[in-house]
Amino acid sequence: MALFSRAEYLERIADTKVAMADKGIELLVVCDPANMNYLTGYDGWSFYVPQAVLVVDDQEEPVWIGRQMDVNGARHTAFLSPDNMKGYPEDYIQTTVKHPMNYMGDLIKERGWGQKAVGVETDAYYYTARSDGALKQTLGRSEFIDANLLVNWVRLVKSDAEIGMMEQAGKIAEKVMATALSNLAPGRRECDAVAAVYQAQMTGTPEFGGDYPAIVPMMPTGEKTSAPHLTWTDDPYKPDQAVNLELAACRNRYHCPIARTAYIGTTPPEKLNTLAAITVDGLNLTLDAITPGMTGEDVEKIWRKHIARHGFEKESRIGYSMGLNYPPDWGEHTASLRPGDKTVLAPNMTFHMILGMWMDDFGFECSESFRVTDTGARTFADFERKLFIIE
Amino acid sequence: MALFSRAEYLERIADTKVAMADKGIELLVVCDPANMNYLTGYDGWSFYVPQAVLVVDDQEEPVWIGRQMDVNGARHTAFLSPDNMKGYPEDYIQTTVKHPMNYMGDLIKERGWGQKAVGVETDAYYYTARSDGALKQTLGRSEFIDANLLVNWVRLVKSDAEIGMMEQAGKIAEKVMATALSNLAPGRRECDAVAAVYQAQMTGTPEFGGDYPAIVPMMPTGEKTSAPHLTWTDDPYKPDQAVNLELAACRNRYHCPIARTAYIGTTPPEKLNTLAAITVDGLNLTLDAITPGMTGEDVEKIWRKHIARHGFEKESRIGYSMGLNYPPDWGEHTASLRPGDKTVLAPNMTFHMILGMWMDDFGFECSESFRVTDTGARTFADFERKLFIIE
Repeated sequence: MALFSRAEYLERIADTKVAMADKGIELLVVCDPANMNYLTGYDGWSFYVPQAVLVVDDQEEPVWIGRQMDVNGARHTAFLSPDNMKGYPEDYIQTTVKHPMNYMGDLIKERGWGQKAVGVETDAYYYTARSDGALKQTLGRSEFIDANLLVNWVRLVKSDAEIGMMEQAGKIAEKVMATALSNLAPGRRECDAVAAVYQAQMTGTPEFGGDYPAIVPMMPTGEKTSAPHLTWTDDPYKPDQAVNLELAACRNRYHCPIARTAYIGTTPPEKLNTLAAITVDGLNLTLDAITPGMTGEDVEKIWRKHIARHGFEKESRIGYSMGLNYPPDWGEHTASLRPGDKTVLAPNMTFHMILGMWMDDFGFECSESFRVTDTGARTFADFERKLFIIE
Repeated sequence: MALFSRAEYLERIADTKVAMADKGIELLVVCDPANMNYLTGYDGWSFYVPQAVLVVDDQEEPVWIGRQMDVNGARHTAFLSPDNMKGYPEDYIQTTVKHPMNYMGDLIKERGWGQKAVGVETDAYYYTARSDGALKQTLGRSEFIDANLLVNWVRLVKSDAEIGMMEQAGKIAEKVMATALSNLAPGRRECDAVAAVYQAQMTGTPEFGGDYPAIVPMMPTGEKTSAPHLTWTDDPYKPDQAVNLELAACRNRYHCPIARTAYIGTTPPEKLNTLAAITVDGLNLTLDAITPGMTGEDVEKIWRKHIARHGFEKESRIGYSMGLNYPPDWGEHTASLRPGDKTVLAPNMTFHMILGMWMDDFGFECSESFRVTDTGARTFADFERKLFIIE
């Protein structure tokens, strides 16, 4: 059974068709797994083979197309009627002579949609150069309309039901961060601390379990804090070092990222204490200042002014829209909290605001996932904001 | 520090150049994260932004190109000299006006390689249609040479050092499967059993920790066993049902997948016992029969004859090459154990042989990851092959 109501999926599809019409698209080929889920409910670890959802201007329901063995998974999770879930045979898998996109092109023609104006997600992770070429070949086209991020932008404002999922993820995120902090100790291997974090992510709460986040836990320490995307090792945590905890919880593919910094040892350097206090103050006052109607750049400006008063600056963005997603990223690649972003904040937009301050040889970060409410911003997790001391 | 010796990386690169020359490629753009790791050692969760390794016919070392903030990660993990690790600035990230592949094309021209014959991995997960278009635009080309799977095929025969990693993954895999079996019980939530599996995957053994596998744990039960890529829910495991356990362990990105079937209850249906016995016998005799010099299809034929004697047949392949990988798949997409596969087995090739037998309303699966030795096949994990009974 699909996670949300048929009415909710149809509303999402209607919104997508409006965005399609704006670009002159009559048939949209959606390959981003999060967008496929958003439009149909389909949820499975099958995105390692080509699959797509077709949204057609004059059809109420989209068509899900995937590997034949995954049609049962679509029946379990998508709201679609049986005729709109189509599987391609095994002989399309991992061969040089044909490609699943050839099958999809043939299906488009069979259904009489061969002359429609086609849009594709040109930069979606799993829409490869060969996928694009095979679909063009079968449909006899040299160009498609670029529909990159089209559905991502439709996803920007969440429904109340989606917010409910993110609130559950927020409850799990509190447990995940508490577990991480209680597993930091000098001599404990990084892999063992990460193992405990994973355990907390999946077991969730007694009321609801967790799902796999789109990014693995990041818990670097020492000089590795300057290499933000290295994963863990067997090395033991050392005393008198800071640890960055970039974590998340996930509920039915909806995320709540959360980041904190901890210091293993009784006496953090004074400069770290100072940076932590300034950063936490900035997070607090920026969150407090948010109201619907502000733009992404307005939000960033509040933070920027605050740290400038303390003699700091930060180059990169301080937040981004997020929610439903699959590996390798939970970010939606749409609205950001950064200079130049004119997105007007509206209720039920959801962001991860992450304030990472990196000096030459130390740093501090603290983040919150929040939704825009009718009057302000409300975080999904409730977790103390400070430099945590692990004695 | 890179995981393997500089000499080993240079040998891999030399092999890659031979394969490039066969196809007339002078400059290979490698975007598959596993291939990037194989050629340089680079290991980070940064494949959610465009990145590449360039292998150039007349250059000893490849060039790693990624996001500026990931250059430190490259310094930590790749064997390359500093001049061969290049970062693109933040303003290339998630924007419609330029693309990281434009930066890469410019770098190719700056280094005087603008006229070389370029090969790209057309169907690699993270080589999108837009990546391809942006690189063509900057280099002023309308076509590239298709180098899909070129490096994957170079990876087919593992070095002894790689085998060592997979042996460690095999030791972890034994613990992972034992943990899964001991966490199946009527009333226990699927998410809690999965949480225990994750914990075992990452904590590894006291001697070496685990890494994240390229696919999440799959532990379906009941009617969901017919939908192989659905992930877990909060549902409790029920009595008198079979559970398929498709799991893996990973060590420094090297995998050991392992699958077993368990039955929760004292009395499995006789037909399940029978199918289990036939399948396990088939796995045993097929593994025992393997010798270097056989082809992929020869191996499959042994299995096929065995089950035909018992009145069964199986449509899909029974195994595939695997080893080093990243999400979303641990398979290498090269040699398979299936009809038509002419790959000649040689020592240090590594496969996952997975025998999944699906009837209308029940099924059984059992798998082993193994390497081809000088005389036969040797599994990475040592774990009993049978239908496990959870009383």
